[in-house]
Amino acid sequence: MPYVNIKITREGEVTAEQKRRLIEGATNLLHDVLGKNKATTVVTIDEVDTDNWGIGGVPVTEIRKKGK
Amino acid sequence: MPYVNIKITREGEVTAEQKRRLIEGATNLLHDVLGKNKATTVVTIDEVDTDNWGIGGVPVTEIRKKGK
Amino acid sequence: MPYVNIKITREGEVTAEQKRRLIEGATNLLHDVLGKNKATTVVTIDEVDTDNWGIGGVPVTEIRKKGK
Amino acid sequence: MPYVNIKITREGEVTAEQKRRLIEGATNLLHDVLGKNKATTVVTIDEVDTDNWGIGGVPVTEIRKKGK
Amino acid sequence: MPYVNIKITREGEVTAEQKRRLIEGATNLLHDVLGKNKATTVVTIDEVDTDNWGIGGVPVTEIRKKGK
Amino acid sequence: MPYVNIKITREGEVTAEQKRRLIEGATNLLHDVLGKNKATTVVTIDEVDTDNWGIGGVPVTEIRKKGK
Repeated sequence: MPYVNIKITREGEVTAEQKRRLIEGATNLLHDVLGKNKATTVVTIDEVDTDNWGIGGVPVTEIRKKGK
Repeated sequence: MPYVNIKITREGEVTAEQKRRLIEGATNLLHDVLGKNKATTVVTIDEVDTDNWGIGGVPVTEIRKKGK
Repeated sequence: MPYVNIKITREGEVTAEQKRRLIEGATNLLHDVLGKNKATTVVTIDEVDTDNWGIGGVPVTEIRKKGK
Repeated sequence: MPYVNIKITREGEVTAEQKRRLIEGATNLLHDVLGKNKATTVVTIDEVDTDNWGIGGVPVTEIRKKGK
Repeated sequence: MPYVNIKITREGEVTAEQKRRLIEGATNLLHDVLGKNKATTVVTIDEVDTDNWGIGGVPVTEIRKKGK
Repeated sequence: MPYVNIKITREGEVTAEQKRRLIEGATNLLHDVLGKNKATTVVTIDEVDTDNWGIGGVPVTEIRKKGK
């Protein structure tokens, strides 16, 4: 009965199919590595605005502008 | 001074009154069971799109379509 | 299928029975207010050392020493 | 490589510049106090509706109405 | 630069090698599905006592005793 | 009434005084940038074993062994 939370920046378009693959993949990972029960594994995905995510002390919005 | 985070799927309409009841109920629960000070108890509620929540490896969006 | 996370300070002894009541109470709350399915409601409890929790800019360890 | 999550109520306008200062400030704090590597420090900011945040058992929406 | 948090119950022995596989697997998943940069993907694993985790309103400790 | 969660690896000794400075610093940051009320600002610190934290798909335990 694991709980997995995935946080990603909200950029480009993340499709429902890609989210489905994240949910399925994380659930399979816990099953394959630890034998966890898939039926009670919960996965949530948070999409965070690039203004609201920073790394190295700099917002992702600025990092993207610099073409990184 | 407990902190409670409640995550629910964003489905139907959750009214401000229902959210108020969740906040009040969680605060009372911590007070009743552990004697925690209500004044400094914080509750936050996250509403998560059904595409972004999965259980059993399947997004809630798909589970709802199948009438479950 | 809500997910509830409860964070409390690690003080005194919180018994398994008290934790059971928190889990049951939070699950019932989501059911009573929003009609959520109890079977898939997950509750986790984090106990945090008083050195690692602050309010008002002051660690709880110091607040407790001052008899508050 | 610390990870910092900041949750604030969604009120007034929080500008991109203010968010930049939160990201920079939190990253510097971890560096100054613990010598953490700024390059791998991640900061995320969650803005939460005032209906979805409660303290003292009362939603912030109601607290604001009472002019507190 | 995704951030993934995995919560599991603290049961049996989860080895360092199993944790390594969870970290590697989650990082690969985000790369494979969304093309995320592995170098800045962060994964954390929380192990939660079975008294502190509930599903269906019942602590996992009790569920395990009943042989489920 | 912000809530700040700081996650760091459990390495070396993080003293109560250093934790106090993190709590004070994060509280001041929210006050200085957004004018938030210090009295209701909550900060929690999670210390995570190096086996349980990964970046770039590799546990911090292994990264430390390689002298990075």
